Amino acid sequence: MKLKTVKLIVVGFGIIGRGFCKVFSEKKKFIEEKFKINLEIAAICEISGCLVNENGIAVEDIEKLAANKIKLEEHQNWTRKDTADVLKEVEAEIAVELTPGNIKTGEPGLTHIITALENGKHVATSNKAPVAIRFNELQELAQKNNLKLNYEAAVGGAIPVINLYRENLQINNINSIYGVLNGTTNYILTKMRRDGITLEAALKEAQELGIAETDPTYDIEGIDTAVKVVILANALMNKNVKFRDVKVVGISGITPEAIDLAKKNGFVIKLIGDVKKLEVSPRIVPKNHPLNVDGTLNAIMLETDVASDITIIGRGAGARETASALFSDVLGIAMELNN
Amino acid sequence: MKLKTVKLIVVGFGIIGRGFCKVFSEKKKFIEEKFKINLEIAAICEISGCLVNENGIAVEDIEKLAANKIKLEEHQNWTRKDTADVLKEVEAEIAVELTPGNIKTGEPGLTHIITALENGKHVATSNKAPVAIRFNELQELAQKNNLKLNYEAAVGGAIPVINLYRENLQINNINSIYGVLNGTTNYILTKMRRDGITLEAALKEAQELGIAETDPTYDIEGIDTAVKVVILANALMNKNVKFRDVKVVGISGITPEAIDLAKKNGFVIKLIGDVKKLEVSPRIVPKNHPLNVDGTLNAIMLETDVASDITIIGRGAGARETASALFSDVLGIAMELNN
Repeated sequence: MKLKTVKLIVVGFGIIGRGFCKVFSEKKKFIEEKFKINLEIAAICEISGCLVNENGIAVEDIEKLAANKIKLEEHQNWTRKDTADVLKEVEAEIAVELTPGNIKTGEPGLTHIITALENGKHVATSNKAPVAIRFNELQELAQKNNLKLNYEAAVGGAIPVINLYRENLQINNINSIYGVLNGTTNYILTKMRRDGITLEAALKEAQELGIAETDPTYDIEGIDTAVKVVILANALMNKNVKFRDVKVVGISGITPEAIDLAKKNGFVIKLIGDVKKLEVSPRIVPKNHPLNVDGTLNAIMLETDVASDITIIGRGAGARETASALFSDVLGIAMELNN
Repeated sequence: MKLKTVKLIVVGFGIIGRGFCKVFSEKKKFIEEKFKINLEIAAICEISGCLVNENGIAVEDIEKLAANKIKLEEHQNWTRKDTADVLKEVEAEIAVELTPGNIKTGEPGLTHIITALENGKHVATSNKAPVAIRFNELQELAQKNNLKLNYEAAVGGAIPVINLYRENLQINNINSIYGVLNGTTNYILTKMRRDGITLEAALKEAQELGIAETDPTYDIEGIDTAVKVVILANALMNKNVKFRDVKVVGISGITPEAIDLAKKNGFVIKLIGDVKKLEVSPRIVPKNHPLNVDGTLNAIMLETDVASDITIIGRGAGARETASALFSDVLGIAMELNN
């Protein structure tokens, strides 16, 4: 069987971009053997310029770049070109958009995704912001150009919930979706319950471990969960909703006393994204419920009309775990290409 | 977009066959609209004969047959023909094999599957026995004829774990798989823990509820779990193993004292299928572990090299739930057909 060559442009070379490239370098041979696809990275783009090799950057170089052993700008194929120009000019089938997105504007990812779709490139992205902010417009643009816009990695990290529904639970209608969608808050709530400590103490520990950011507002106040609720509602429940449609209550009001009271009655408190009701709020969950996952784990439960309840649990963050979801999208597109 | 017509032959019209046909009648329009596939049932086969209509049995009739409002042999298109002859003669793309399989011989499903594959028909089946007994031979036969043999419904009921791995976690190598794969034993162990009762008492209750069979040996002694371990090992871990390769210990030796002791230390006892080690045995599992699911639920955890641990939880039995997995296979095949 002949190998099919599929070229990628990787946009964004932070933690997620490096993680994707590391997994690429590990799995290039595996992809070739298992899927008969010669996957190449034709460009890696950063804010200051791009590394371009239309024949595919050497896999040893990608490995070193991912491990930070060589820097992008030290590579012989480095150019000061804009990402937009590379997305327009470099021949590739799929743009992999991995920049961190500003939740208000969706930039710079939004412009990257639009440029890719307008220039005949499928898109796989881990970038929640543009997908949440402009879901319908981006879907329409993709459809108009007969291209795919995939965003499995934008929700639930390693958990392939969007493709799971579309490809394996496809006979079902979804009645509702409930999720523990933010690892930071789940870690804090778990810590509070186990050690009987305050939110402030648990947060401090999470920050020391790198699980919470210096400004934890985005997680603690439920905003991150709400963005994921928007994506799941639009992607899996045919809604057309925006962030402002979601009622959001975070975990900052949760006291050790509340957790203790729940515990005594056989419950735990979890920050739940209720996709059908478009609500994010702390809720009590029975101890033996599939959504009662501890630590930084995420869990998503689909209530369906044929399969009944299906819950999928996995790591909600991490560069390597996110790469698994990205490759689900990238290989899904690559397998369907006729070239 | 033009509708693509895909015809099925349903073999076996017991609980699973009726459930499949009921979901078919509910979802025919949905499949047409969502997937642009005109799915037709060209034949329904039973041991005493077959109902055949090469143009597709009317969906109203299928609904009534599934609900037992009319009987197969009362239908105008009923014939005393053998299943084998119908599989040979009737034009259809996919045979859906839903008979109960004898675990020693795999029959009658084994013959049905072989006949279908030898006569140019893809196969989707919920029948564990033939898949477990003759995995390699059947796979080779399917490949030789350029056909698919799908068996998502044979393991884990509604849980689409095989397709989840193949289609959405495809970049991963699986390091190991652990599963709570038998709803009956999980119900009994849950009952024993909650109510502090003996295995005999919990079993009696399960039998009264129809969760356990009159002869519960197959479930209690871990045989059912072992058969599923064989399928998962062959399907997802590239093994070539048989039932005799699995070391099996059931739950009949589990006492209320053992469960109580585990409970006091923060653990539960679950009957675990360890796919890598080819072992079925009761094991202690931490209370907060994703595999700690209660009642008749099943849970399967994949330990992978990129996505880390992914656990999927759902109903392990039930005609309707099993139909969801069957349609995952049927539609997967139908979408790829070029006719």
